[in-house]
Amino acid sequence: MAEFDLLALIHELGGNQRSDVLLGIGDDAAVLRITEGMDLVTCVDTLVAGVHFLPATPAWDLGWKSLAVNLSDLAAMGARPNWAQLALTLPNSEPAFVRDFMQGFLALAQREGVALVGGDTTCGGLAISVTAYGLIPPGQALQRDGAQPGDHILVCGVLGEAAGGLACLQAGGRSTEWSEVVLAKPRQERLVQRLQHPEPMLAAGLLLRGRASACIDVSDGLLSDLGHLCTASGVAAELWLDSLPHSEDLCALFNAEQVLDFILAGGDDYALCCTVPEALLVAVQDDLAKREIETHAIGRVVAGRGINVFDSTGHTFQPRRRGYEHFRT
Amino acid sequence: MAEFDLLALIHELGGNQRSDVLLGIGDDAAVLRITEGMDLVTCVDTLVAGVHFLPATPAWDLGWKSLAVNLSDLAAMGARPNWAQLALTLPNSEPAFVRDFMQGFLALAQREGVALVGGDTTCGGLAISVTAYGLIPPGQALQRDGAQPGDHILVCGVLGEAAGGLACLQAGGRSTEWSEVVLAKPRQERLVQRLQHPEPMLAAGLLLRGRASACIDVSDGLLSDLGHLCTASGVAAELWLDSLPHSEDLCALFNAEQVLDFILAGGDDYALCCTVPEALLVAVQDDLAKREIETHAIGRVVAGRGINVFDSTGHTFQPRRRGYEHFRT
Repeated sequence: MAEFDLLALIHELGGNQRSDVLLGIGDDAAVLRITEGMDLVTCVDTLVAGVHFLPATPAWDLGWKSLAVNLSDLAAMGARPNWAQLALTLPNSEPAFVRDFMQGFLALAQREGVALVGGDTTCGGLAISVTAYGLIPPGQALQRDGAQPGDHILVCGVLGEAAGGLACLQAGGRSTEWSEVVLAKPRQERLVQRLQHPEPMLAAGLLLRGRASACIDVSDGLLSDLGHLCTASGVAAELWLDSLPHSEDLCALFNAEQVLDFILAGGDDYALCCTVPEALLVAVQDDLAKREIETHAIGRVVAGRGINVFDSTGHTFQPRRRGYEHFRT
Repeated sequence: MAEFDLLALIHELGGNQRSDVLLGIGDDAAVLRITEGMDLVTCVDTLVAGVHFLPATPAWDLGWKSLAVNLSDLAAMGARPNWAQLALTLPNSEPAFVRDFMQGFLALAQREGVALVGGDTTCGGLAISVTAYGLIPPGQALQRDGAQPGDHILVCGVLGEAAGGLACLQAGGRSTEWSEVVLAKPRQERLVQRLQHPEPMLAAGLLLRGRASACIDVSDGLLSDLGHLCTASGVAAELWLDSLPHSEDLCALFNAEQVLDFILAGGDDYALCCTVPEALLVAVQDDLAKREIETHAIGRVVAGRGINVFDSTGHTFQPRRRGYEHFRT
């Protein structure tokens, strides 16, 4: 697998180019023009077969998802994504796999105006490491450490459906039988789509710029990621069980305990969890609603440490799990 | 392996911070201030156990090398490195390995003023993917595609010694016996050091800015990488066997045919191979000499395609290998 094969494939697939890409794939490094007065926002995320995805995951979905999880990190900063690099480790140079993978990757890249500017292909166990790059006006990055007692806690996007999709696949027997066992059923198919085909909440991140006091993307489960936000901000959180968004598909397929477990501790959601000062809440919710971004106010920031979940009677609810463990096969 | 363990370790190891790192490790992404009027240069390179390094490679060396190979790419662009991100995939969270690895990584980072600004730790077969970031004044990047017939071909650094080091290790029996078999012998130890502990030619890259017509780093062997440069530039090259730098250690340990093979087709050198117009040659060589950078003029760019190697009698020499295959264990 030479990098030049990948280059030819990307050209053939209509790889997007931007005028700020002074030098793209094919040299020792990429050269990128930064818009004057903007700061660079950059992140890297690796997906490993059998850890972050089931080995039978279709290549197209894997290409999409490997970029999506990185764009989700940029969304959580309020950044607009511009560029990406792809480090692809493959057990063999199966052209059909690479083609499908790149089509999924480039489908999302092209939709979001992200240029693939470089990368590396190497031989080894299937793993994908993507670096994403975006820009943001100085001082407007949404960090984790700005939440204040009294702020409202908002979730933009859906919680728990990806974990429900994973449960469907795992219940469906051998993963090679996905299409027969699961995908003929619309509810299951929608949940599996959430897992395989996540949507980074980029528009929400842009709307939250300069207004949310803190933000994080929910990749390891709400309690885990909100916990990171609280720790970084030196605050605690109160969540209201009744305010959590309960997906109709989840409720139709799983019992109440399972649904809550998925919502509170399921992974791979890529929703945004942010904190918004009381004075800005209505304006922020209105703007998100105008863009048709599903948003739920699920609790408040308080002084202290940790996260308490309350049920409709005001009693403390003890979640079955608090974090998300990557599955292993 | 949570990313927060790594964060704590980096803080403890004195992880360097720069004033242009507005937000480093610990959030969804890093935020970096780009010096006004500079372009961003960025690259990613992955090292996989058993493909790019012998599994018994000491963790410290691996940390150093994983950053060095990326800084070498920035050197080949003429960029000054500023930041790096580290995506580390580990079979288990062995603290001693991670500590040694990070010490090697940060030793080079701190020496070169590179801040580690983010990363990702995940579970899987040992693999390291590093993204490096540097800056360059507009229009000064050393690309591969600018070589012109008549230009001189220069190599900055040493060729073939890393391949010699690998041969020493492989001849030394089981790689776990390195220290006993090989490292007591000074010549072998120096060659192994070249393999394990490469020096990115950053100072050379800065001196070549605006003067070399093309540049590439030699990671896959001279013939292979110079071949990429020639292809990108639409030119051919003539190399003179007698002008190639013959390392004393290599000549003492290997026969003439092996030495030439290492020089022409050995991997992991991380020397720079550049082309310099006739009018600038003396000035460039003088400046490199003043910085005590080993430099050799090894041939000329000519019209056509491919690379011809000539011996001292003017006859064409046929190399045994033209490219470098990553070793497998």
